[in-house]
Amino acid sequence: MDFKYEDFKDKVYNIIFGTDTLAGKAFDIMLIVTILGNSILVIAESVDKIRNDYSLMLQGLGMFFLIVFSIEYVLRLMVVRKKTAYLFSFFGIIDFLAIIPVYLGFIIPQIRFLVVIRIFRLLRLFAIFKMGRYIDESSQLLRALKASRPKITVFLFTILFIIVLVGSLMYIIEGPENGFVNIPESMYWAIVTVSTVGYGDISPQTPIGKLLSSMLMIIAYGILAVPTGIISHELANTSKGEKITKVCKNCATYAHAAEDKYCARCGSYLEL
Amino acid sequence: MDFKYEDFKDKVYNIIFGTDTLAGKAFDIMLIVTILGNSILVIAESVDKIRNDYSLMLQGLGMFFLIVFSIEYVLRLMVVRKKTAYLFSFFGIIDFLAIIPVYLGFIIPQIRFLVVIRIFRLLRLFAIFKMGRYIDESSQLLRALKASRPKITVFLFTILFIIVLVGSLMYIIEGPENGFVNIPESMYWAIVTVSTVGYGDISPQTPIGKLLSSMLMIIAYGILAVPTGIISHELANTSKGEKITKVCKNCATYAHAAEDKYCARCGSYLEL
Amino acid sequence: MDFKYEDFKDKVYNIIFGTDTLAGKAFDIMLIVTILGNSILVIAESVDKIRNDYSLMLQGLGMFFLIVFSIEYVLRLMVVRKKTAYLFSFFGIIDFLAIIPVYLGFIIPQIRFLVVIRIFRLLRLFAIFKMGRYIDESSQLLRALKASRPKITVFLFTILFIIVLVGSLMYIIEGPENGFVNIPESMYWAIVTVSTVGYGDISPQTPIGKLLSSMLMIIAYGILAVPTGIISHELANTSKGEKITKVCKNCATYAHAAEDKYCARCGSYLEL
Amino acid sequence: MDFKYEDFKDKVYNIIFGTDTLAGKAFDIMLIVTILGNSILVIAESVDKIRNDYSLMLQGLGMFFLIVFSIEYVLRLMVVRKKTAYLFSFFGIIDFLAIIPVYLGFIIPQIRFLVVIRIFRLLRLFAIFKMGRYIDESSQLLRALKASRPKITVFLFTILFIIVLVGSLMYIIEGPENGFVNIPESMYWAIVTVSTVGYGDISPQTPIGKLLSSMLMIIAYGILAVPTGIISHELANTSKGEKITKVCKNCATYAHAAEDKYCARCGSYLEL
Repeated sequence: MDFKYEDFKDKVYNIIFGTDTLAGKAFDIMLIVTILGNSILVIAESVDKIRNDYSLMLQGLGMFFLIVFSIEYVLRLMVVRKKTAYLFSFFGIIDFLAIIPVYLGFIIPQIRFLVVIRIFRLLRLFAIFKMGRYIDESSQLLRALKASRPKITVFLFTILFIIVLVGSLMYIIEGPENGFVNIPESMYWAIVTVSTVGYGDISPQTPIGKLLSSMLMIIAYGILAVPTGIISHELANTSKGEKITKVCKNCATYAHAAEDKYCARCGSYLEL
Repeated sequence: MDFKYEDFKDKVYNIIFGTDTLAGKAFDIMLIVTILGNSILVIAESVDKIRNDYSLMLQGLGMFFLIVFSIEYVLRLMVVRKKTAYLFSFFGIIDFLAIIPVYLGFIIPQIRFLVVIRIFRLLRLFAIFKMGRYIDESSQLLRALKASRPKITVFLFTILFIIVLVGSLMYIIEGPENGFVNIPESMYWAIVTVSTVGYGDISPQTPIGKLLSSMLMIIAYGILAVPTGIISHELANTSKGEKITKVCKNCATYAHAAEDKYCARCGSYLEL
Repeated sequence: MDFKYEDFKDKVYNIIFGTDTLAGKAFDIMLIVTILGNSILVIAESVDKIRNDYSLMLQGLGMFFLIVFSIEYVLRLMVVRKKTAYLFSFFGIIDFLAIIPVYLGFIIPQIRFLVVIRIFRLLRLFAIFKMGRYIDESSQLLRALKASRPKITVFLFTILFIIVLVGSLMYIIEGPENGFVNIPESMYWAIVTVSTVGYGDISPQTPIGKLLSSMLMIIAYGILAVPTGIISHELANTSKGEKITKVCKNCATYAHAAEDKYCARCGSYLEL
Repeated sequence: MDFKYEDFKDKVYNIIFGTDTLAGKAFDIMLIVTILGNSILVIAESVDKIRNDYSLMLQGLGMFFLIVFSIEYVLRLMVVRKKTAYLFSFFGIIDFLAIIPVYLGFIIPQIRFLVVIRIFRLLRLFAIFKMGRYIDESSQLLRALKASRPKITVFLFTILFIIVLVGSLMYIIEGPENGFVNIPESMYWAIVTVSTVGYGDISPQTPIGKLLSSMLMIIAYGILAVPTGIISHELANTSKGEKITKVCKNCATYAHAAEDKYCARCGSYLEL
């Protein structure tokens, strides 16, 4: 029995990229478990106490995950047919970004934490479990968002205008001595206020400053209402579907669905 | 006249579990007054000044409530027919959780305050006063929430993604010296920001951190709009009066309107 | 020419209570100017610097307003026919509450500021300027709010449950040493958090407390969506009006408006 | 070849005010680049570090922009036909406000930053790039806002009432010793709270104050829902595709749908 490299490559390809065969599914599930484990490891590693107490174990696990993901990446590169297409595909970039921080982390330790980018690969979950319904729903949400893009663009520009203007005014009114150190800082304050987050790290001190921010807050009130209005309106539009499609010629009743063949009130045949 | 234990058990059962007889109603109202009194007692007890000034009275009342609820629980257990079913039912668990903290409180004093769990029993109010309208409304709200579950799941996953990503990035950018002690703490900050709560206990200090949080806030703006849009859309749907009212016996198609007489698909007569 | 007390009383009544005659309108406008002036006076008086610098002028004006409102109140009482009905009417109570704090203010100075209650009398503006449109709109808003009362009651009870529960849990988890001094204080924190106000005067310090508040915030997110959904849904309901009202018997086209008389597509007469 | 001043004026007019010719477009794009550059310069100039490090370059650029905008303003004034109409038009005022702060800035340095007002001129972008779609969308948003003006006015007055009342009450309850220095300051706190911004620079300290603010927050919850509800409702109304498409020449009734052929009120034929 001779070993055929091409056959082997095909097999590996089906396991790694496929989601239909049992082996492919098993591989993907293992991968997801690994990714989740790795994400939790990275998050846990950032906690001082855990890092100090379990330093050896964490280093071991980190090394293990690095090897696993490196092998996986090399395998993917080997078996994939259109190498450049994969390299610059969404998942190709994610896969690359998921490994590179670990290597760079040997030089600049903080970069290591960028490994959490790997969680983007969890999007594969949708493909694996054929969660069609959720994809449907998210595509409906995306469609609603896309349909309201021009409105939201107008809205974002209005916000940006308000932020630049109010930010500059507050810098002039309050000045560096009250925490509005410069215009960018003032604009940061304006965003914190308009979004109603309100940390309180910077807050107006002078009466005029307080008056202006009060006005900004009341305007923010009305502004907050706009995107919500837009999105709930678009959601209603994208999921309507229940339009009057046919009208019964006998009794003038309208039919809801395109596939209705008989009138619901008099039972006569509905022509197109 | 001979005493029949079974008759007595039945009588007690009707009083304790029933809500239709006068005695049952009176019992339930007394119980609710007791629960409310007990909840207020627990809340009041947590206030230092009150605890010190009325310590004897509070201890007395606490003992009284403990005895009342213990007797009630033992009675319930005695008269209920399906004992295990009750033990693991919603109210069974609530009833158990409502007593146990008091006993455990003798060992670990803080646990005592868990007694507030008892307020869940106030849900019985709905059953007692036959507040059908409110149940209708809440079931409509629940239906709207249930109908929008896939959309809300998608939404929550998006939020989680954003929180993990932004949390990790902020940990790298700001670091422990600016209050972002570790990634979980950073994620807590991200949640506080995205939800527009903004305590200000942690807030970005570096220019890049401020820029990233500004972007997060503006995104949060748009994100906040999504669940509102979803729910107002679903509320409109669930209460449109478009319920399935009749089903065609010939082809199993459902009819939208109550006045539909013929099946819209096969034209056969719809019986009631 | 003899002076008739009854005639005089009628005349004064028309001026004070009426809004149709020129004299009545002039009186009302003068009254509103007085109320606004008085409100601004009270607000200005609370500012230390102004009180110290203009103390004599403020006292003089305060006395002037006191006399004006006292005379007005006495006159109203004198000329009104149904005295007790007026005394306990909305405006009767407001008028009373608008004077009494000034008199009580001689005893307890702080009470004096309650005079701002007088601004409620500005509601008369609506009556004077016949701002029908605004009354229409506000009654539509009120109708929408009233229609959604059962839903909002359910909603408020849910919020209350969450606040009592989370408040008690946080008191147990965080304890007095982290600012959660007692359960009422903890409940105050829960309200500040759920409403996304987030002062930051109390904020969780322990990891478990932070986890629980994170969950509370994400839930608050969804909860905030509910009243908005309810109100926009009800607003849509109360102002619909655009239902299909008639159908053309000739071509089966439906008419939007009740007053349409001819079919918009084929021009034939629309029977009722 | 003789030079005609009128011809030259016309040419310059077309370049400066026109957006149709190539030269006019090029001028506008150059202008926008200059405005953006100038805005960024002003924002950058406010940052201490940048001002100190690049002081000479910033001064040079500032002088350059001053000369450019001054020349442009003088040219505009020279070539425009209706001079006073331009001076008091929206863009005329903006153009004036965009230069004057720089000159005044030589006297009072802080005023210089008002130059950011110039960004309003970016609104010309819409005209230049014929961004009809965005103008459509913004006019739809504006129409929705305009249609809901009476409702929003009612809403704003309600808010104002609540702010004055709660502000005064909190001043009486908390007093200057807890940060509620005077009624205007208390009203500022009320706005910060109602808008859910919650800086935390002022927050209630007494139990009664905390109770009152808790109530305010829960009310704010419901209030926040109103403008959103109004706007999403109006958006749905204004964009229902129910635009006036044809008007009956016989009875001046408008037709809703483009395919309507006969007037719904008088039955006469609708011409295009």
